[in-house]
Amino acid sequence: MTAVRNVLFVMCDQLRRDHVSCYGASRVPTPNLDRLAALGVRFDNAFVQSGVCGPARMSYYTGRYVSSHGATWNRVPLSAAEHTLGDYLRAGGRTATLAGKTHVLPDDEALVRFGIEVESERGALLREGGFAVLDRYDGHTPPGPESGYAAYLRAHGYAGADPWSEHVIAVDAGGAFASGWQMRNVHLPSRVAEEHSETAYMTDLALDWIRAQGDTPWVLHLSYVKPHWPYVAPAPYHAMFRDADTGPILHGPQDGGADEHPVVRAYREHDECLSFAQEAVARHVRPAYMGLVSQLDVHLGRVLDTLSATGRIADTLIVFASDHGEFAGDRGLGEKELFYDEIVRVPFIVCDPDRGADATRGRADPRFVEGIDVVPTILDALEIPGAPHRIEGSSLLPLTRGDPVAAWRDCVFSELDYGFRRARRVLGRGVRECRGFMARTDLWKYVHWEGFRPQLFDLDADPKELVDLGANAGYGAERARMRERLFDWMATGKRRTTVTDDVVESRTDVHREHGIHIGIW
Amino acid sequence: MTAVRNVLFVMCDQLRRDHVSCYGASRVPTPNLDRLAALGVRFDNAFVQSGVCGPARMSYYTGRYVSSHGATWNRVPLSAAEHTLGDYLRAGGRTATLAGKTHVLPDDEALVRFGIEVESERGALLREGGFAVLDRYDGHTPPGPESGYAAYLRAHGYAGADPWSEHVIAVDAGGAFASGWQMRNVHLPSRVAEEHSETAYMTDLALDWIRAQGDTPWVLHLSYVKPHWPYVAPAPYHAMFRDADTGPILHGPQDGGADEHPVVRAYREHDECLSFAQEAVARHVRPAYMGLVSQLDVHLGRVLDTLSATGRIADTLIVFASDHGEFAGDRGLGEKELFYDEIVRVPFIVCDPDRGADATRGRADPRFVEGIDVVPTILDALEIPGAPHRIEGSSLLPLTRGDPVAAWRDCVFSELDYGFRRARRVLGRGVRECRGFMARTDLWKYVHWEGFRPQLFDLDADPKELVDLGANAGYGAERARMRERLFDWMATGKRRTTVTDDVVESRTDVHREHGIHIGIW
Repeated sequence: MTAVRNVLFVMCDQLRRDHVSCYGASRVPTPNLDRLAALGVRFDNAFVQSGVCGPARMSYYTGRYVSSHGATWNRVPLSAAEHTLGDYLRAGGRTATLAGKTHVLPDDEALVRFGIEVESERGALLREGGFAVLDRYDGHTPPGPESGYAAYLRAHGYAGADPWSEHVIAVDAGGAFASGWQMRNVHLPSRVAEEHSETAYMTDLALDWIRAQGDTPWVLHLSYVKPHWPYVAPAPYHAMFRDADTGPILHGPQDGGADEHPVVRAYREHDECLSFAQEAVARHVRPAYMGLVSQLDVHLGRVLDTLSATGRIADTLIVFASDHGEFAGDRGLGEKELFYDEIVRVPFIVCDPDRGADATRGRADPRFVEGIDVVPTILDALEIPGAPHRIEGSSLLPLTRGDPVAAWRDCVFSELDYGFRRARRVLGRGVRECRGFMARTDLWKYVHWEGFRPQLFDLDADPKELVDLGANAGYGAERARMRERLFDWMATGKRRTTVTDDVVESRTDVHREHGIHIGIW
Repeated sequence: MTAVRNVLFVMCDQLRRDHVSCYGASRVPTPNLDRLAALGVRFDNAFVQSGVCGPARMSYYTGRYVSSHGATWNRVPLSAAEHTLGDYLRAGGRTATLAGKTHVLPDDEALVRFGIEVESERGALLREGGFAVLDRYDGHTPPGPESGYAAYLRAHGYAGADPWSEHVIAVDAGGAFASGWQMRNVHLPSRVAEEHSETAYMTDLALDWIRAQGDTPWVLHLSYVKPHWPYVAPAPYHAMFRDADTGPILHGPQDGGADEHPVVRAYREHDECLSFAQEAVARHVRPAYMGLVSQLDVHLGRVLDTLSATGRIADTLIVFASDHGEFAGDRGLGEKELFYDEIVRVPFIVCDPDRGADATRGRADPRFVEGIDVVPTILDALEIPGAPHRIEGSSLLPLTRGDPVAAWRDCVFSELDYGFRRARRVLGRGVRECRGFMARTDLWKYVHWEGFRPQLFDLDADPKELVDLGANAGYGAERARMRERLFDWMATGKRRTTVTDDVVESRTDVHREHGIHIGIW
């Protein structure tokens, strides 16, 4: 008997794990996320399948690694052949509703090939990665027609051709406005009132919708575009933190040096790294980022309050995660990508309302979790069949419910395709020669880079990953061992997706029953 | 300037390379295949992507490795997301016409999901792997509604509910008939006249069709079901060879022994191996198989004669290949699968009518060719764009035309998923734990078997692959080196299929042009 009737899957964009206080020393107090963690299980070792929005999210939505779903970077359409959370739910009579960001791009070529009108019901589902759209807003460009946010802003008096650019991500500059794209401006408050900000708008929408469902079961993906850039925070959050609160800036002995890995060094030529490499920039931007996190936490508190007030806290599975982290100047890098823990290790909390999970409430679980576990966890909670021949993640309910788990993964995997990035040109690589693969255990992190030496970090001796042992002659055996982990992972990716395991089982050794009598005398 | 207007892609099913006399010591004289080889290039090192019909053919039709197209064994539907030869041709205004076997199974789940009626034009193309069907006949079960063969048989006086079972694959037994499924019967002639046999029927159909095209350019896949079992040959081919002609039966010191590889040993429990392990069976069946090859050769002679008589020999690219080989008792094994050269190394001839290829006519080319090269070769010949982001093979025209080739592959790859086979149960494996991957250079063959030790063969010292060095402590370095080949191959499989390389190139480092100003100060 499960008590789960509803699912709330909350995603933050670019939220660093060390900005969530239930994870220990945090730069930002997040009392509401801590409250959430007290209601459920905080996973200490949760990793995303890529350190960049698009592929990480497609893994969250399909339950498959990036090499399996094929959307290797931002704006790579999710193949129409991939099945998403929404598809699985729909097959089980449920709907996955979206409020916020997905970063899904439609597989237009397939739509044309299959004669599916993009405006049809089928087309809409493929376009939206299987979600039913309450409001879709991917951030980082002005809200489009799938979001009510532009109209909302206008209705609340934010004028101009593009209220997002002129208000939400803008600051006052004399009589005019200046853009929050320019990081020099992010110490100033946004020209939008806090209650009209992106985070507030999407929370309001989600809570109204949840209340409107009454007793009808629901599944909602509440997907915030923050604390992702542009980093402008509304008052009072823009000024909540000071330089002094922004903590240390991580630097390793190899940073930018001749023995640094060539791909990392190439990333240093990106605009964001050129900026964040300057400590003054990092110290200037971090408070705004921290303010955005603090604001998010307050709105997550509203979500929890509403779930409590409506009684939904008792029958709603809550999954909270981030799509990846943020360097914010650590290592002299900005933004995301690559495979350092600042990026691929994310906050990840599961509140399972089932009574069987009472014993684990408030616990931290050190076991490895991956973004691909979200789909099977939700399906498990709603008792909707998954597709073990396609889904590569595992339900986390045995963990939240303290069920005996015979074997759990001891290694996580992440991928990167930097073919779209300047780094590719810096390195003189072709568009298909830019892949990286990470295998990480509790003790070692190994990264295979196509065409370059690997990276290796001894996480026990060097938990901050400051000393890259990828070229150190003393670590050949460790590299070989970790490379074997990658080999086995690649060799077992789920490639046969058009017949189920049950069909294979039922068709094993049955040719005779179909009148095919091979090799009989 | 190319002279290629038409393409004839001939496939035989289960034809061993050492049964084609232009390849040297052959058990069967094949004067017409030799004639074909004299007109073009005979590739000496051609390999299929799997040693079993379905996956090997899907690689031939998509230009992609099995791990990329996902149809890992027979009757695994080809994903609707895969693009085939027919799809690429159609985009270029041409049609791929089919006469014979494809083994394509429709991706019914996708058809339902995309709302495509299976009987619609789109549905038909997906059902047929992109081919326009002149006559589809997969063999090994009675011809279905997509083939005219059943009606043809009836029209020619072959009575009964199932003329295929009662005549084509049957032999006389007293007043009744006995089935050719029982290999004890294959010394007797088929109950079908040679001119009404499967091979004759499909050749007639193809030649009538070619003649009917007149000067209209065409692409035809003439895909024979022979010499695949049931091994019954029509007179006089059933008696053309004797036991004495059947050559040696290959045996290795490890065959069936305790140090044989577990997967190979498990295959020995299949019916066909239990039968073919008996020398008497092999000696009994081989003459029929050889007869079927000889018959095929005669009909290929008719094809060549027709192309010559119609002038089409001057403007038709001919590709001749087999989908895999046949053990026929070698190693005490029957049928196919696994990774020995008897199975994965196939006859492969390309006749390129272009004048640029005159210098290579009659030559043998030792360079490595794979089944995935057929699609890009045909597209190249017809000057139709391919899709380098999806297609994993390479055009062979630079080889036939003696163009300078900077670098050519020095390793080929093949895969097997034995999840559907009895061997899986023998070994106690789950349906998703049965994958094998082969890397083969000119000197070494290495096979990774999930859950078991690898196989390794020293092809220089042991060209017949009799001594498996997979567990030999003296060959650790070779195994490691070959495993690296597999690693690199797996890490570079084409997974990003929904945007072209050109799009990636054009989108590299352009976010600023789209109003996204990441990380500027």
